[in-house]
Amino acid sequence: MAPRWKGRTAEAKALADPMSKIVSDLQSSLLQSDAHASLSGSNALLPVEPQHAEILTRACFGRPIITADKVNQWFQLSLEEAFYLSHHLGCLKITHHQGTTCTIAELWQYMKSKIANFPHYYKAYSYLRTKNWVVRPGSQYGVDFVAYRHHPSLVHSEYAVIVLSGVDGRLMVWSDLYCTIRLCGSVAKTLLVLTVNKNGHGTVSPTALDGYSVEERSIRRWSAEQNREDPVAAANGTKYDI
Amino acid sequence: MAPRWKGRTAEAKALADPMSKIVSDLQSSLLQSDAHASLSGSNALLPVEPQHAEILTRACFGRPIITADKVNQWFQLSLEEAFYLSHHLGCLKITHHQGTTCTIAELWQYMKSKIANFPHYYKAYSYLRTKNWVVRPGSQYGVDFVAYRHHPSLVHSEYAVIVLSGVDGRLMVWSDLYCTIRLCGSVAKTLLVLTVNKNGHGTVSPTALDGYSVEERSIRRWSAEQNREDPVAAANGTKYDI
Repeated sequence: MAPRWKGRTAEAKALADPMSKIVSDLQSSLLQSDAHASLSGSNALLPVEPQHAEILTRACFGRPIITADKVNQWFQLSLEEAFYLSHHLGCLKITHHQGTTCTIAELWQYMKSKIANFPHYYKAYSYLRTKNWVVRPGSQYGVDFVAYRHHPSLVHSEYAVIVLSGVDGRLMVWSDLYCTIRLCGSVAKTLLVLTVNKNGHGTVSPTALDGYSVEERSIRRWSAEQNREDPVAAANGTKYDI
Repeated sequence: MAPRWKGRTAEAKALADPMSKIVSDLQSSLLQSDAHASLSGSNALLPVEPQHAEILTRACFGRPIITADKVNQWFQLSLEEAFYLSHHLGCLKITHHQGTTCTIAELWQYMKSKIANFPHYYKAYSYLRTKNWVVRPGSQYGVDFVAYRHHPSLVHSEYAVIVLSGVDGRLMVWSDLYCTIRLCGSVAKTLLVLTVNKNGHGTVSPTALDGYSVEERSIRRWSAEQNREDPVAAANGTKYDI
């Protein structure tokens, strides 16, 4: 399925302004200002200056929290986003409630305590992000993430992503798979199943992540009528009696 | 969600011709002709006279098998349908390949050997059928059944039905539930979850079915915007900053 750009100029705009460059700008910008976010339940809250708000929005990390306060602005980051900025890009410090900065090991423990399968979800998230996909939550479609080729203002999301890690997740029964494929089709997305294998590495520290592997599978409906060997019959929609 | 009738006169037609009467006519017709179906994998095949084909179609049992043979017609029944006609309505005999008629006990064993959860699915199927719902396969939507208020030519299906029996089925994780509800919403159906409890009765013989209970739950998306206490604000779609 080809990417569905929003408007005629969107593709050219995206090409002229690659996501890798935007994320790299975000990294410099946060490093320069020594950015600190604080943990709050299953999110991290980042107080931002207007220039940070703009680059966070362009890079599609977190979402602005709308308050009546016009002076102080906050961005709410998911735990995957916070860990990616902190651990992978190394441009964000994260603090406890008490104001002390967490070590990466403390942060990893916190993430795992909030989301049981955090190592798997994070591996999938970072896997797509390092390939310059924009990754956003997929709960609206009942999947783990949705992936965009560029900023959501320029293009519709192409993939509905499900992360499989073990035995207690999605797609364990056929009807669940049918349901997911039907929904993905009706919202013009391709179902991308990422199976994260720990390969014997544990979840004790985030260094284990390097040993994890990710298998990609894209799943789509196959229609006999649309896949005939004889293209004329296919075009005419000829049906054969059985 | 109100039933979606197909055309203006459909509701009146349905009222004038209740499904209970149609099924009762089917029962008489099959009894009178001493109908025999034969087991074939996960289906039963019923050779039919033209008048049977007509009443089976009206009652929405099975589907015609289209062949080049204009003289002999066959209907393919699902195992739930075959067992309902045979055991509940008592109007269909079912034979093995060898041509000998199965006893109900043999039939029950056969059904269970083909579909692991047959007792649960059949309980759900017969539960809806005895309430005069037309029940058809739901695999197109990734559910177990779809239920129609009357014949599908008169009305769209109202419910997407999932049968829950134990620990290894659908709706075990939140994302699966979100996905299913989103799909049901987009195809204008209500998700009906039927939880079948065996209440300590086994699956040894079909008489155990009487001891099973069925819990109904219909699940729909709840939108804060559409459920405001203040109807004026709701109508205007007013949004409050948090």
